[in-house]
Amino acid sequence: MLTRIDHIGIACFDLDRTVEFYRATYGFEVFHTEVNEEQGVREAMLRINGTDDGGASYLQLLEPIREDSAVAKWLAKNGEGVHHIAFGTADVDGEAEAIREKGVRVLYEEPRIGSMGSRITFLHPKDCHGVLTELVTSAPSRH
Amino acid sequence: MLTRIDHIGIACFDLDRTVEFYRATYGFEVFHTEVNEEQGVREAMLRINGTDDGGASYLQLLEPIREDSAVAKWLAKNGEGVHHIAFGTADVDGEAEAIREKGVRVLYEEPRIGSMGSRITFLHPKDCHGVLTELVTSAPSRH
Repeated sequence: MLTRIDHIGIACFDLDRTVEFYRATYGFEVFHTEVNEEQGVREAMLRINGTDDGGASYLQLLEPIREDSAVAKWLAKNGEGVHHIAFGTADVDGEAEAIREKGVRVLYEEPRIGSMGSRITFLHPKDCHGVLTELVTSAPSRH
Repeated sequence: MLTRIDHIGIACFDLDRTVEFYRATYGFEVFHTEVNEEQGVREAMLRINGTDDGGASYLQLLEPIREDSAVAKWLAKNGEGVHHIAFGTADVDGEAEAIREKGVRVLYEEPRIGSMGSRITFLHPKDCHGVLTELVTSAPSRH
């Protein structure tokens, strides 16, 4: 079961400037930052609200750190904007498998490590009406 | 103060097929449907979770009903995908005014009527790092 909007992933050219835009315009503060070498991004998580499944919803601001990363290629094609959306679940493995059996392409054979120690996978946007869709199980201690 | 991710607006060519995709793939059910003649769309709201400000987060699926609507033009250019994101606030008028004073273009002079009797306005995506951003104050009775 998918129980929350976990985050909205937003691709940007300059993470520091984009963080400052969200702080100055809306008052959103940085909750967490990290570099994900595998994904080729550095990122900032802005926590927007808590959710009734015990989790939270974030904006995830993403800046590529390599020109061959998926986010860099996406930015070169599309410019800045919403890159993906993510639903939270207690069981990313089971959800991914159930969705795969429905004929939706799941991009990873097994979930990988995402923000804040979460486990994540992605669904092919062409199978999801144009929306790159992520499934997330948070690390136990984080919200 | 913006206190939640209110919804993610997703533009689609065929609302019924897209609703069915979200139901069959994730189990998300339709919470509300309506036609917004002014915006030139028909829409379905899928409630995903409650939020700790007493509101909720939704997916808003949007199909244009007129070729000259903003969503129809957006779809013709971009294909299906995430059209906008929306933050919930108790005071859309005050937030819009404060953000306008910071130099971000607010697209409506005064908030207009959005989904489920809410009051909404939009911020220019070019002033928001490529993200068409909506501000929403829900009608008192709805979540």
